[in-house]
Amino acid sequence: MYPISAVVGQEKMLRALILNTINPSIGGVLIRGQKGTAKSTAVRGIAEILPEIEIVEGCKFNCDPADPENLCWECMGKRSKGTLRILKRQMKVVDLPVGATEDRVVGSLDIEKAVRQGVQAFDPGILAQANRGILYVDEINLLDDFVVDALLDAAAMGVNTVEREGVSVSHPANFIIVGSMNPEEGELRPQLLDRIALQVEVTGIYDVEQRIEIVERRNRFNEDPKMFMREFESEQEKLRSKILKAMQLLPKVTTTRDNLRTIAEICIVFNVDGHRADIMIERTARTNAAYEGRERITNDDIIEAAEMVLPHRMRKRPFEEEEFSADQLRAVVEGNL
Amino acid sequence: MYPISAVVGQEKMLRALILNTINPSIGGVLIRGQKGTAKSTAVRGIAEILPEIEIVEGCKFNCDPADPENLCWECMGKRSKGTLRILKRQMKVVDLPVGATEDRVVGSLDIEKAVRQGVQAFDPGILAQANRGILYVDEINLLDDFVVDALLDAAAMGVNTVEREGVSVSHPANFIIVGSMNPEEGELRPQLLDRIALQVEVTGIYDVEQRIEIVERRNRFNEDPKMFMREFESEQEKLRSKILKAMQLLPKVTTTRDNLRTIAEICIVFNVDGHRADIMIERTARTNAAYEGRERITNDDIIEAAEMVLPHRMRKRPFEEEEFSADQLRAVVEGNL
Amino acid sequence: MYPISAVVGQEKMLRALILNTINPSIGGVLIRGQKGTAKSTAVRGIAEILPEIEIVEGCKFNCDPADPENLCWECMGKRSKGTLRILKRQMKVVDLPVGATEDRVVGSLDIEKAVRQGVQAFDPGILAQANRGILYVDEINLLDDFVVDALLDAAAMGVNTVEREGVSVSHPANFIIVGSMNPEEGELRPQLLDRIALQVEVTGIYDVEQRIEIVERRNRFNEDPKMFMREFESEQEKLRSKILKAMQLLPKVTTTRDNLRTIAEICIVFNVDGHRADIMIERTARTNAAYEGRERITNDDIIEAAEMVLPHRMRKRPFEEEEFSADQLRAVVEGNL
Amino acid sequence: MYPISAVVGQEKMLRALILNTINPSIGGVLIRGQKGTAKSTAVRGIAEILPEIEIVEGCKFNCDPADPENLCWECMGKRSKGTLRILKRQMKVVDLPVGATEDRVVGSLDIEKAVRQGVQAFDPGILAQANRGILYVDEINLLDDFVVDALLDAAAMGVNTVEREGVSVSHPANFIIVGSMNPEEGELRPQLLDRIALQVEVTGIYDVEQRIEIVERRNRFNEDPKMFMREFESEQEKLRSKILKAMQLLPKVTTTRDNLRTIAEICIVFNVDGHRADIMIERTARTNAAYEGRERITNDDIIEAAEMVLPHRMRKRPFEEEEFSADQLRAVVEGNL
Amino acid sequence: MYPISAVVGQEKMLRALILNTINPSIGGVLIRGQKGTAKSTAVRGIAEILPEIEIVEGCKFNCDPADPENLCWECMGKRSKGTLRILKRQMKVVDLPVGATEDRVVGSLDIEKAVRQGVQAFDPGILAQANRGILYVDEINLLDDFVVDALLDAAAMGVNTVEREGVSVSHPANFIIVGSMNPEEGELRPQLLDRIALQVEVTGIYDVEQRIEIVERRNRFNEDPKMFMREFESEQEKLRSKILKAMQLLPKVTTTRDNLRTIAEICIVFNVDGHRADIMIERTARTNAAYEGRERITNDDIIEAAEMVLPHRMRKRPFEEEEFSADQLRAVVEGNL
Amino acid sequence: MYPISAVVGQEKMLRALILNTINPSIGGVLIRGQKGTAKSTAVRGIAEILPEIEIVEGCKFNCDPADPENLCWECMGKRSKGTLRILKRQMKVVDLPVGATEDRVVGSLDIEKAVRQGVQAFDPGILAQANRGILYVDEINLLDDFVVDALLDAAAMGVNTVEREGVSVSHPANFIIVGSMNPEEGELRPQLLDRIALQVEVTGIYDVEQRIEIVERRNRFNEDPKMFMREFESEQEKLRSKILKAMQLLPKVTTTRDNLRTIAEICIVFNVDGHRADIMIERTARTNAAYEGRERITNDDIIEAAEMVLPHRMRKRPFEEEEFSADQLRAVVEGNL
Repeated sequence: MYPISAVVGQEKMLRALILNTINPSIGGVLIRGQKGTAKSTAVRGIAEILPEIEIVEGCKFNCDPADPENLCWECMGKRSKGTLRILKRQMKVVDLPVGATEDRVVGSLDIEKAVRQGVQAFDPGILAQANRGILYVDEINLLDDFVVDALLDAAAMGVNTVEREGVSVSHPANFIIVGSMNPEEGELRPQLLDRIALQVEVTGIYDVEQRIEIVERRNRFNEDPKMFMREFESEQEKLRSKILKAMQLLPKVTTTRDNLRTIAEICIVFNVDGHRADIMIERTARTNAAYEGRERITNDDIIEAAEMVLPHRMRKRPFEEEEFSADQLRAVVEGNL
Repeated sequence: MYPISAVVGQEKMLRALILNTINPSIGGVLIRGQKGTAKSTAVRGIAEILPEIEIVEGCKFNCDPADPENLCWECMGKRSKGTLRILKRQMKVVDLPVGATEDRVVGSLDIEKAVRQGVQAFDPGILAQANRGILYVDEINLLDDFVVDALLDAAAMGVNTVEREGVSVSHPANFIIVGSMNPEEGELRPQLLDRIALQVEVTGIYDVEQRIEIVERRNRFNEDPKMFMREFESEQEKLRSKILKAMQLLPKVTTTRDNLRTIAEICIVFNVDGHRADIMIERTARTNAAYEGRERITNDDIIEAAEMVLPHRMRKRPFEEEEFSADQLRAVVEGNL
Repeated sequence: MYPISAVVGQEKMLRALILNTINPSIGGVLIRGQKGTAKSTAVRGIAEILPEIEIVEGCKFNCDPADPENLCWECMGKRSKGTLRILKRQMKVVDLPVGATEDRVVGSLDIEKAVRQGVQAFDPGILAQANRGILYVDEINLLDDFVVDALLDAAAMGVNTVEREGVSVSHPANFIIVGSMNPEEGELRPQLLDRIALQVEVTGIYDVEQRIEIVERRNRFNEDPKMFMREFESEQEKLRSKILKAMQLLPKVTTTRDNLRTIAEICIVFNVDGHRADIMIERTARTNAAYEGRERITNDDIIEAAEMVLPHRMRKRPFEEEEFSADQLRAVVEGNL
Repeated sequence: MYPISAVVGQEKMLRALILNTINPSIGGVLIRGQKGTAKSTAVRGIAEILPEIEIVEGCKFNCDPADPENLCWECMGKRSKGTLRILKRQMKVVDLPVGATEDRVVGSLDIEKAVRQGVQAFDPGILAQANRGILYVDEINLLDDFVVDALLDAAAMGVNTVEREGVSVSHPANFIIVGSMNPEEGELRPQLLDRIALQVEVTGIYDVEQRIEIVERRNRFNEDPKMFMREFESEQEKLRSKILKAMQLLPKVTTTRDNLRTIAEICIVFNVDGHRADIMIERTARTNAAYEGRERITNDDIIEAAEMVLPHRMRKRPFEEEEFSADQLRAVVEGNL
Repeated sequence: MYPISAVVGQEKMLRALILNTINPSIGGVLIRGQKGTAKSTAVRGIAEILPEIEIVEGCKFNCDPADPENLCWECMGKRSKGTLRILKRQMKVVDLPVGATEDRVVGSLDIEKAVRQGVQAFDPGILAQANRGILYVDEINLLDDFVVDALLDAAAMGVNTVEREGVSVSHPANFIIVGSMNPEEGELRPQLLDRIALQVEVTGIYDVEQRIEIVERRNRFNEDPKMFMREFESEQEKLRSKILKAMQLLPKVTTTRDNLRTIAEICIVFNVDGHRADIMIERTARTNAAYEGRERITNDDIIEAAEMVLPHRMRKRPFEEEEFSADQLRAVVEGNL
Repeated sequence: MYPISAVVGQEKMLRALILNTINPSIGGVLIRGQKGTAKSTAVRGIAEILPEIEIVEGCKFNCDPADPENLCWECMGKRSKGTLRILKRQMKVVDLPVGATEDRVVGSLDIEKAVRQGVQAFDPGILAQANRGILYVDEINLLDDFVVDALLDAAAMGVNTVEREGVSVSHPANFIIVGSMNPEEGELRPQLLDRIALQVEVTGIYDVEQRIEIVERRNRFNEDPKMFMREFESEQEKLRSKILKAMQLLPKVTTTRDNLRTIAEICIVFNVDGHRADIMIERTARTNAAYEGRERITNDDIIEAAEMVLPHRMRKRPFEEEEFSADQLRAVVEGNL
């Protein structure tokens, strides 16, 4: 696995991934960009620096032993029998391939087989694996409709439900959705776009030295991956520890009424749909403050957050310039002070 | 469940939901609006303040013990054997997910299995669950045609009929249909649009203090849902009791011939299709009067009702302004007095 | 069932339904109109005033005991065994739902099952039930092609034929087809349009007092259907007896050569396709005379008939006014006298 | 069956049908016309005046006992065993319904069933029934492609071949194809159009007395079909005997080189595709001479034939008048004499 | 079978067919033309004059006993057992009907059946029959894609491969492809067009005497096919013997470097795609020389060949005249001498 | 097999194929060109000069005995049992036919059969055969989507994964992809285009002597393939040995920082998407140096590489000249020195 700290440039993308890792309730990130801009490399690389979580040993859904009300049926059984054991392991990045079958995504439910063969009727799918982890969808804009529907349901409820022949099975499916896409190959369905909290645009790098660095690193990695990973291990460790600290600090960060007013004004000026943007900017800004080691949210946190929350939420105005910039954001924010 | 009394703004939508709860014969409501405007939150929240109904214990169709002529076949059996028992419970909100299979919606009927395995041939679906409750369809404009057909049949007859291999089963399916949709994602099939009595438009709120309130409440709810709900319990109770009183008052509200004339004149001036609008305005106005604690229908009741009944029933006139307003309504009404 | 005599206005539609009832060989009626104009109410209501017919007891096809040549195979068997018994009952209105499966419409034929299980191979469908009755198709313009084909075959032959795996079964399928449609939702396939004899346009009523009457009656019916029906029982009885008298008078009504000339001239002036229109005007006019209690056909009968036969049979002339009126008809007719 | 001699007007259509009956090698007729112009009535009516043919008794393909080389496999068996018996019966008109399944049209071939159950593997279809008769296809322009393919194959080879799982069965399928269509509902596939020899256009009749006659006859037929048929029996008999005489005269009619030159010049002037038109005009003209009782072909025979052969064979010339008339034909012909 | 020497006119088409017969490595011919221009008649007629070939007796693939390396598996078995016997018979014309199923074209492969019933798993199809013969596809432009794919594979490899459930069977499939099409019904897929070596355009004949001849011959053939064939037997025999002589002469015909230069210059001037055209012109010209009884290729041979090879191989140049003529070819050729 | 050294012209295409053979990590080549430009001949011909590789004897995936970590499950078993034997054989060119079924491409996985019949559940497909060889896809632009998806997955991971009914099997699938296409028949899916490292355009040759040479060689090959191959054997041998030497030299070739700067500047000037181009130019240039027998990369190597890497990676700029040339490249490169 190419180490995420060896990725050259692309700070926005890395930050969006890290903020979601610190605070999974932010609600995912969509990475838009040209071919060959390290989108997949970064998402797969984040796996190496994810924090550990506690899960019920042997649970196919990664149930949280600390949340007894939301255990799956098997864990409930174990719990009542006193056989539930706790395991600590890193959060995982689970891939959702664009061509995966419905059964593979949501799990398969075969009543007849269960009856006939005495086996488990429900065979969990990718959404089960992804519970309490990161679900990565490369080319998310090319997903089949049925998968988008399953993702929307899971995103709305935190639960995946499979129905076959009138029988239904549900299990927890809370995950951080990370999608990547090349916008030249088509846009994302609006409902799914709306459900993903943050959006970052990645572009190629036009600095010669950075490009040289990219090729050199890639060559070194190809020649001897283990050596290369060792070389970046201390960078990786630093990142892991910064994330852990931010997770501990997060509950202490407070949002002032002034912060909220600034957020509301931004959303009104930029004419966003509904009120989800306000909520997402607040959460993202708060997490950013924690990542920066502060207990107070600054306007910079809010601007940083808004830059990732707003691009796909502003109402389209024909014949107007739809792009917006940190400068515009700052102008709005400073008009407030 | 986010308490409905904690929803900020959106009075029209709340009133439409409440009037339908008081008088289910009004015939449903369609909520149109942008993403993120609390549509789903409100509909799901209404569940908490719904009145209690009496049902036959164990009945999959929520049969009404007070209506012996329309019992399902099982309840009829129980009744003739004297084993029919009555249960009191709150009306329910049943979700109809956009991607539900036909079998899941109308129920499945498997003759062969019944014969082979000696089990019930008919396995009730969502329409059975929804009988005498609220059926909520988010993204109602994206429903498959077969579900729309099933809804239209149920709406026209109050009965759901399933046919397979020449056998047919019917059961009562009387429900308040509540749909929500984002008009940017496509319009509703005209036949279904015509069957839903009321329509309300919800828009985002552009008042800074209200927006702050939305984020603050949402944050508080997320941090400690139980505490938050306790905080709003008295508001909820007030609403419940106001609804109950209105239900008791409703049969006493009378419609005068003058009221009917006003309604007819409105419908003629606004050039509506057919006569369903007259009937719906009358019922909605009557229910509104009850909700306001009056036994007489005022012009304000009629205007309030017409605002919700007419928008989707006026004939389209090319090159004319199709919108209409309470002011126009008032002008028509006062020309009558 | 809402009594047909309680329908306010809509005289043309009621007359078209009644003439078909008196003389089923007229060949059906198509009701075109906006939503909410009592189309379904009227068709379903006519059931209450239909005359009685004699059928073979237990026959799934409603065979006519007075027509021994056209009995179904079962009735023929009964007849040869002398076990054929006669039953008297009202003509029926049979609904053809827009989404009905092919098997449900034409009946299902399962050879294998018949062989394996020793049961009847043919299970009759809606067209069997509709024999010698009224077949009502709401939203007839939305029918699937296979149903339209089945209707056309039955209309052309008076027989429904089902073929499966090289085996075919036929049974009598003579019915009065009554379709209703909202032209805003699409037009009817030309072949089917051509097969339906009469067409009436229903529109909303713009008279305030009539609209009040509609809402009042509907409210009274909803509050106490039985009381409401009792209230209209004498009106219903009058209608029934007028229909019966017309049926008895019909064979005595004669068509003069002058009547035929008038009809031919109308069809030439209005440039209709082929000669079916002449035949249908003659039959409708003759039945109208009977309904009015006369043995002679007047020009008014012809005009009344032509108004219902011609609208869908005139060749379209681009850039000309395609509508026609009773006045134009009268002008043509009086030029004859 | 409405007698063909009771059809009012429509001489061209009747002549085309009769010429094909006299000389089946002409190759069919396509009747184009509006709705309600007696197209079906005429084709079905021709059944009554068809000549008798000899067939092998019990043969499903109507094998010709006089053509021992082309017997089907069963008749060959009978012949070799000396059990082949001859039956005389009228030629038949076989209906090909627009919606017929492939198995129904070409016959079904079920090897597995034959092996398993010891029954005949091949179950003949409509094309088998139609051998040596008339195949009537109403709405021929609406045929499914697979049926058109089967018709084209049969028309090209005089043989119907069914292939299933690598096994193929062939049987003679020589028939006179008669199609009718309303051109407003779509055109015919060019390959099929090219295969049908003659084309006639039928239009409504605009003569008042004739229209009266049509309605009167139709009424009389409806009231008492048997009486009506008796009334026209002598007309029918006359027609039958004229056809028989023409069949006997046909082999004696000779085509002179001058006749052929006239035909070639017509085809060059009217710019037809290929050379099939020349051959068809010659055959039709020759048959027409026989029908008129002559042994010589006159220019009138050629004009009569060309009027039916050419309309669908002239190359389309943009911006030119594509219609042609008997007058134009006569001008071309007389320029020759 | 209508004798090919009785076809009036259409010399180009006949020559293209004959050259392919003499030298199958030329690579097929595509005949384009209107309806009714004797395309099918000519191709089917060529069967009568095809030379004899030696095949292995009983071989379903017509294996060549003189080519032991390319025998099919059965013939290899026979050969090793010494039971391979040689049969002499005429080359065949095999029809590929437009609607043939995939199994019928490439052969069917049923492993399960082979295992279960002990029969041959592979049942050869039309491509097997066509090996070492002519494959005739009428309406080649209307072929299904799967057949075109099979033809392209066979054309590229000389082998037909069938794969089912992971098992694959291959057999030799070398044939002369002859396609005919009416360009008004759609064009040929470019890949297939490119694979067919020659193209000829056939048009109707506008000479009166020739047209008379066509009808007279056709009439005589229809009246007494055997007599007609006898009449043309000596013509047929002459053709057969000329073809045989050409086959013997062909290996002796030499292509000079000057011939090749002329060909290359033509291809450059006419701007053809790639180099297949050069190769095909050389082969066709060489074969034409042999047919004309010469051992040297003249410029006329090259022009004759180029006229058939180039039409479908020149790059389309918008707004230029795309047609080319023998005159243009001659101009290019003579500029060389 | 036509020897690759006998191909006239087309040096770019041959070089691209050879560089990939020397260094499979370059990542494939796409050959674009008109019909008939020897594309397939060249790719198939390269098989003859491919170097030998060591594989595990009997392994369906061509496992590399020198890479024990990536053995397939069978080879792992053999290894642990000490029964793994090594085989030396030439790299292979495996054809992926455009119409291949999914099972044929990725392999088939039949759990039920495995259970029932005790056979191998997984039956490897073309991607297994192609491991460590060349996968050739003619008409790559016409591939079905499912095959493109399988190729993209294999290209991204070097692994082919098959999932059926919840079971998944993976095996190594590292191959050099070589595609050819005629751009007139449609473009390649962008994701696949991006995955193929090099692109070369082949065009026809407009030199008369070369064209003569092409036809002469082709004729000689057709007449006596074995003789022709013997004639070119020494050329073939020279090529093989040059490739082997380049493979040995490759690890010694070093890329200087100046080389990388030149590459980065080219990519910035030509405005390519992402950074994959830089990596690919470096690899290709390095391999080219080895092929030329040098240990240093020159600017010519970089230009040669860029000419093959850039054409499909430059961002399209509307209204600008999109083509680029070696001259432009040189100008950029020399501006650097």
